[in-house]
Amino acid sequence: MGKGLEGWSVRHLLIVSVALNVWLVLKVSNYDKDTNFTTEKIFNGFCAHEEFHKQVPLSSSSSSSSSMAAAAVGEKKSVHDEADDGRIINFDHGDPTIYEKYWQEAGDKTSVFISGWQSMSYFSDVKNLCWFLEPEFGKEVIRLHNIVGNAATDDRHIVVGTGSTQLFQAALYALSATGGTEPISVVSSTPYYSFYRQVVEYMKSGLYKWVGDASTFDKDEPYIELITSPNNPDGLMRQPVVNRSGGMLIHDFAYYWPQYTPITSAADHDIMLFTVSKTTGHAGMRIGWALVKDEAVAKRMTKFIELNSIGVSKDSQIRAAKILQTVSDSREHAGDSKDFFETSYHHIERRWKQLREVVGKTGIFSTPEFPPAFCNYMSRLFSTQPAFAWLKCEGEIENCEDFLRSHKILTRSGKHFGMSPKYVRISMLDRDSNYDLFIKRLSEMRT
Amino acid sequence: MGKGLEGWSVRHLLIVSVALNVWLVLKVSNYDKDTNFTTEKIFNGFCAHEEFHKQVPLSSSSSSSSSMAAAAVGEKKSVHDEADDGRIINFDHGDPTIYEKYWQEAGDKTSVFISGWQSMSYFSDVKNLCWFLEPEFGKEVIRLHNIVGNAATDDRHIVVGTGSTQLFQAALYALSATGGTEPISVVSSTPYYSFYRQVVEYMKSGLYKWVGDASTFDKDEPYIELITSPNNPDGLMRQPVVNRSGGMLIHDFAYYWPQYTPITSAADHDIMLFTVSKTTGHAGMRIGWALVKDEAVAKRMTKFIELNSIGVSKDSQIRAAKILQTVSDSREHAGDSKDFFETSYHHIERRWKQLREVVGKTGIFSTPEFPPAFCNYMSRLFSTQPAFAWLKCEGEIENCEDFLRSHKILTRSGKHFGMSPKYVRISMLDRDSNYDLFIKRLSEMRT
Repeated sequence: MGKGLEGWSVRHLLIVSVALNVWLVLKVSNYDKDTNFTTEKIFNGFCAHEEFHKQVPLSSSSSSSSSMAAAAVGEKKSVHDEADDGRIINFDHGDPTIYEKYWQEAGDKTSVFISGWQSMSYFSDVKNLCWFLEPEFGKEVIRLHNIVGNAATDDRHIVVGTGSTQLFQAALYALSATGGTEPISVVSSTPYYSFYRQVVEYMKSGLYKWVGDASTFDKDEPYIELITSPNNPDGLMRQPVVNRSGGMLIHDFAYYWPQYTPITSAADHDIMLFTVSKTTGHAGMRIGWALVKDEAVAKRMTKFIELNSIGVSKDSQIRAAKILQTVSDSREHAGDSKDFFETSYHHIERRWKQLREVVGKTGIFSTPEFPPAFCNYMSRLFSTQPAFAWLKCEGEIENCEDFLRSHKILTRSGKHFGMSPKYVRISMLDRDSNYDLFIKRLSEMRT
Repeated sequence: MGKGLEGWSVRHLLIVSVALNVWLVLKVSNYDKDTNFTTEKIFNGFCAHEEFHKQVPLSSSSSSSSSMAAAAVGEKKSVHDEADDGRIINFDHGDPTIYEKYWQEAGDKTSVFISGWQSMSYFSDVKNLCWFLEPEFGKEVIRLHNIVGNAATDDRHIVVGTGSTQLFQAALYALSATGGTEPISVVSSTPYYSFYRQVVEYMKSGLYKWVGDASTFDKDEPYIELITSPNNPDGLMRQPVVNRSGGMLIHDFAYYWPQYTPITSAADHDIMLFTVSKTTGHAGMRIGWALVKDEAVAKRMTKFIELNSIGVSKDSQIRAAKILQTVSDSREHAGDSKDFFETSYHHIERRWKQLREVVGKTGIFSTPEFPPAFCNYMSRLFSTQPAFAWLKCEGEIENCEDFLRSHKILTRSGKHFGMSPKYVRISMLDRDSNYDLFIKRLSEMRT
């Protein structure tokens, strides 16, 4: 489709054609257009796209489930200068497979060996408040924070969780379980992490309830505010916005690491959540940690995890300790391997450069701009380069998710984040082969 | 204290002395005697004894926290014919450390080696309904069930969980999330697993509510009945008792393995829960699995685990696959290592023999009797030898937990299981050194 097709009537024809495509795609894939968060809607949680789990083709002429699996799990070949094989690119979730390359190159020193008789007991350290925390993992968490300088660790309790999702629920429980008879309000500024709303709502808990946008919350009662900084989905640095008495804060710092954003100071808040998934890319471990100031809160978080899953996988904690140790060593013993954060920073930097170039050329989309700041870890100025791109479809495209879907690119609609469907969230952390194909398709798009 | 002390006035003196001891012990350890399941009570969940996490001595003359830690984590020396060192024995929880010995002897073939770049993605198998199930683990689960003959596996969905505790909650969610506006009743025959009640109640969910004893449930409305068989705490084989329309069943088969009970047939129910913790002793892995008939139920269970923790540790699944494989191999390739279930059966058999002997001699306690049955796996008759002893204090001892506590043996009171405090549940799965000391103390007890 060359320049000649940009005339007015041809554009209309194309819009009709795209709309028809979208309708066909939706019909085949039984896409649920209901925007209410009913129980059925909860079935589109971590993965907004049911097709990801189904063995149905996305459209009658497109790829089968096997190519979906390949796209998600194993496709490695580069698409530079190659023909588009028509496969579906799933950038709906933030699977951090970009990091596989670093760990492959790091080699065997990052491996763990666990004997059959090791770590059989429920207990890791009965003298620790968090009795299922592996001491070695706790040690490496503190060491890494001290090296990166992104969080205060003195006089904190570490609570380990099955990913930060479990810790988020542990924090909600800890802050609400001593309260009154009414469920406590949970708020977050829009656009907020879509998954959090569903996690707050799925148990229909009498302890807490989802209220929504923090900027419009004006009730004179206790509340819990979630602050994700840098924010998911839009990458902006966040501060609390309600600032009323009775407010309790949960800071989600999943992305406060130097490959994503300048580390300007050591965060120092009551409850700070981190996850190995976004720090080093080991999402399959399901390991997160919380730094908690108040002992009673840390105790109740520990109690939640006890009641929820009687602790956290020791095997993954042992492995996570090794991975964090490698990351710290890569900074402190530079000769051993490339600095993990520097290497990852440059990988993501290249991707953002590509994205901004193609966005600028097509004129179909826009992306947020971020002010530069001095990073204490990198010892230089740079701008946030988020793990997700918060893309806005400009012009007449009202449903950006559907538009990209017609190009076999699965994204998450802005509506899931309390925003307009003109926005989508796109993972920037997939494998090179998928990212390159994404850029290739983007560069060929016309409205 | 010999036979001569059995006179009436001396017995009274002893009762006063024991009462004084109990009072002192309780005073020092701040034991919460409140039997209501308030939020504070929930803080005695998996471990009924807060002291287990505290660095306080249980009594002024007794052992310190370091000996508690040793008792729980590492104490190995045998106490046969040795002096009692006065340490606390914690048989409150069912930490299955009895199995460490088997796995130490099994050696390196049971080890796993995981490279830094392995299993980084959230996804294990995008074509599987349970997208976070490691295929190798699923394969070994089916193989083991087929070898043992304890559960039907044809046309079932396997859902993996962070222990069976998470799967239990997943099942509750799956069975209740499509229901009406009223929370669905959850029932179980007394004595029921104490922890289950707390797990049902802690989130104050609007989806389900704890109602209690199944044998008195007579409402004409949908309900969920939990059947634990062999039962925790009393070891009896269980069947559903309500048997009304609208009933949904969850079968907890944590202990339906041939080291504990005769395998008389392959269980064949809608939702069957299993856990590696009690099967092979690897509690620290936090891996359980459910065999689920109905696809929609399996999907909702998967959704719960997605919302609860975005899947289950891959590292532990990989390790669990190796462990289950070793167990199956130990049966099918007898030359490689001793049959796991045979070996474990004899270990537990010896303990039950010791316990019954000492219980018979002292006359203070009684234990349940179990009818013999033919085990298809062992090809012989035997009686259930449960993972827990359900001990009753006979005579004038009204609070069996307190009585044993005065001998520095921590157990779980019958009151937590909906029964009288004359009962206690005692783990039969601790290390030899602790079990031997327990038998030694029991044999020296007098009322």
